[in-house]
Amino acid sequence: MEIEQTLKSEDCVSYDEEVIEHHGHSDWSSSNINERPVAVVYPRSTEEVSLIAQICSAHDVPMVPFGAGSSVEGNFLAPYSGICIDFSYMDKIVAFHPEDMDVVVQPGVNWVDLNEQIRHAGLFAPLDPSPTAQIGGMVSTNCSGTNAMRYGTMKDWVVNLTVVLADGSVIKTRRRPRKTSAGYNLTSLFVGAEGTLGMVTEVTLKLAPIPQDTSVAVVSFKDIREAASAASSIIRSGIQLAALELMDDLQMQVINRHGSAAVRKRTWDEGPTLFMKFSGTTDAIQSDIQRVSELIKPHNAGQFHFAKTKQDEQDLWAARKEALFTMVSIRKEGTVLWSTDVAVPLSRLADIIDVSKKDCSQLGIFASVIGHVGDGNFHVAMFYDPNDAAQKARVSKVVHDMMDRALEMEGTVSGEHAIGLGKKDCLVDELGIETIDLMRTLKRSVDPKWLLNPGKVFDLPS
Amino acid sequence: MEIEQTLKSEDCVSYDEEVIEHHGHSDWSSSNINERPVAVVYPRSTEEVSLIAQICSAHDVPMVPFGAGSSVEGNFLAPYSGICIDFSYMDKIVAFHPEDMDVVVQPGVNWVDLNEQIRHAGLFAPLDPSPTAQIGGMVSTNCSGTNAMRYGTMKDWVVNLTVVLADGSVIKTRRRPRKTSAGYNLTSLFVGAEGTLGMVTEVTLKLAPIPQDTSVAVVSFKDIREAASAASSIIRSGIQLAALELMDDLQMQVINRHGSAAVRKRTWDEGPTLFMKFSGTTDAIQSDIQRVSELIKPHNAGQFHFAKTKQDEQDLWAARKEALFTMVSIRKEGTVLWSTDVAVPLSRLADIIDVSKKDCSQLGIFASVIGHVGDGNFHVAMFYDPNDAAQKARVSKVVHDMMDRALEMEGTVSGEHAIGLGKKDCLVDELGIETIDLMRTLKRSVDPKWLLNPGKVFDLPS
Repeated sequence: MEIEQTLKSEDCVSYDEEVIEHHGHSDWSSSNINERPVAVVYPRSTEEVSLIAQICSAHDVPMVPFGAGSSVEGNFLAPYSGICIDFSYMDKIVAFHPEDMDVVVQPGVNWVDLNEQIRHAGLFAPLDPSPTAQIGGMVSTNCSGTNAMRYGTMKDWVVNLTVVLADGSVIKTRRRPRKTSAGYNLTSLFVGAEGTLGMVTEVTLKLAPIPQDTSVAVVSFKDIREAASAASSIIRSGIQLAALELMDDLQMQVINRHGSAAVRKRTWDEGPTLFMKFSGTTDAIQSDIQRVSELIKPHNAGQFHFAKTKQDEQDLWAARKEALFTMVSIRKEGTVLWSTDVAVPLSRLADIIDVSKKDCSQLGIFASVIGHVGDGNFHVAMFYDPNDAAQKARVSKVVHDMMDRALEMEGTVSGEHAIGLGKKDCLVDELGIETIDLMRTLKRSVDPKWLLNPGKVFDLPS
Repeated sequence: MEIEQTLKSEDCVSYDEEVIEHHGHSDWSSSNINERPVAVVYPRSTEEVSLIAQICSAHDVPMVPFGAGSSVEGNFLAPYSGICIDFSYMDKIVAFHPEDMDVVVQPGVNWVDLNEQIRHAGLFAPLDPSPTAQIGGMVSTNCSGTNAMRYGTMKDWVVNLTVVLADGSVIKTRRRPRKTSAGYNLTSLFVGAEGTLGMVTEVTLKLAPIPQDTSVAVVSFKDIREAASAASSIIRSGIQLAALELMDDLQMQVINRHGSAAVRKRTWDEGPTLFMKFSGTTDAIQSDIQRVSELIKPHNAGQFHFAKTKQDEQDLWAARKEALFTMVSIRKEGTVLWSTDVAVPLSRLADIIDVSKKDCSQLGIFASVIGHVGDGNFHVAMFYDPNDAAQKARVSKVVHDMMDRALEMEGTVSGEHAIGLGKKDCLVDELGIETIDLMRTLKRSVDPKWLLNPGKVFDLPS
């Protein structure tokens, strides 16, 4: 095909069925479809991505960018088939500027690898989504993770983007200032656009200094409402935690029974539990821990554990970080994961978690709540049998009820997973058709043939 | 005229010559022009702004939104005449949600008033541009100020916007979650768009907890390069200052001779001086001050003053905050201010300040450097005689050389004043015509007749 002749490097295109299956189906998503891309293309440079776009544009072929494949809303599926563009080979750190506290990377760089490579300079990229995630996908979904409470979301860490537009033209959104008020914020327009406006081929990321010290504290509560209320008090106090996470009773049980050796060193209370990460100077952390222990008292808190050693700290945090993977590893044969999230204004978090948790527990399946409660965001993880249509419908109803509830509370149907295929209808409910139409107008102006990741975020106008 | 008949409230339109002059000319800007709007319109609600847009759109009349009039790049001038839309009467706090840590306001609310009114809840809107600035203008220029080092810029504090588009349709960019990854980031597209994509009629702002404690420290250096290098060391250390400001020798002289009684209580060293604001818990601040005093030692720092009392703290910070107004108050008869700013990657700040300061001092006029050095941003303030064409040309050359230098260093021509009329050409130099063309494409898609604040940010295509 024309792309092979143009790119010329070995392995630049694959038609292998397994490869196509891997790029057209997701084990992490409840939005799978039957369509598949016709081929997977592996560009090595911005220029090659531009050539691919020129060819696809000339032949009206949809282009679907692909990163690590860890997104959960079907963000990289190919409902209109077309070409999947896999950024695996664009995995280089282009330039590291420790003195400017930024780094220029290609989209295929994994964030854990990146942080390993720059650690010697005392800097890090502070967002922590799935450990497999790559920068390109993190940009395109405006991801976050446990550190968002202190550090915000992906949009707050992108200095500039190099982007290939639908017709193959290449633009750079900015130079490298950490702050600017010059012209439209194109950077933030592409962040979270899920590749529907352009394909990101280079990213300059702000970096943060690795904190002088960190610590972790863990405390359980008698019910999830008390836990969420305690979280609220902490947030309102202005104490700047690095993370504030909630795990429910089911997850604490999983950890006690199936967690790694490190987290099974102690027997955890099996009530809803807050995990707190502190960061800053050693003195400030001591003072913050003291204040937090006072703040949670009125909420009938259980015993307040805080890390006394670095090993202790790692063990405590490991319990939070391995929760999802532990759940996946012990799931019942034949069941699959439905992972979803919403976010609401802070004062409504206890209400929505409480009701959603009750809904989940009536499903008769493993369904638990985990929350980035520091920013009003929480997840539900459920394992259901995809061949049991009635069960799937019940799970789907719980998810949709939760989203409706989030909207009634002036929240959002997606806190950090973006929209993909899975939440398009809900986005219309969230924003109204006038706002969706404005998004469509913008889309049409830069991609008039609707070739870039078509069918995601919102539907093509009929 | 049709608008008067439609809006009906008293004083909804003014043709008064003085009123028009006030809205078509700026004492703070070097970009004044001869054109004026034909009338000034005062809407009271989103619905009225929508009606105005419908009428202007039907008759192809340009619409120029106007806030406090404190912008410096001619952002509210009317090069194509048309109607000026003044948001003075839209100055209400619509809803205050202390438990959610947000507030919904109309665009004509002044940020200082807002903070007075919500202080009782222990919350504040943390950006601090000109004390006269209003939220609408702050959104439209993506403003910042001294607190940006810790709190970022306006884009980081806007949860959602209600916007009237060119044709009068009304959209809301989001509901009220503090975090979201649902759909395009329209909020950030309108922030900093200077009213060229739509008129902001309602704003939900995130609020921050007022810090438990604050303190201020001041230290001078033998030259501006040492001061900027010291600032760099502090930033890299990860100590989270609330603000880190630089004032040059000239400004310190002005303070000694003409400052308020409060700041003249002491005689200041007249070398380049760093002003630091600390915030957090009382313990953390003590520890931060100690660390900073160690970090600056290798930079030949002078005596390190830190506030011992709250009065002392106010007095020290007053010296920084009153700098611009003191300079304006003592300016030579017949001279006017040229205020401009650029931002560069952190490592280049010392270089560009050093050279720009030398250029300024060769002008033979009052020209001084003031820096929000915590984020690589600095200002030059110069007083020149607008009737002396040769002098004006020399000043203009210094400004343009500074912008060129910022671009060579991968910086930006505007750190926090936006582009307006004054920096359009430089924005093309900064981003390249392809990126400007993408902005034009977006503009055209939502404002096909080019009626919203035309001639700002970039030129109409010829």
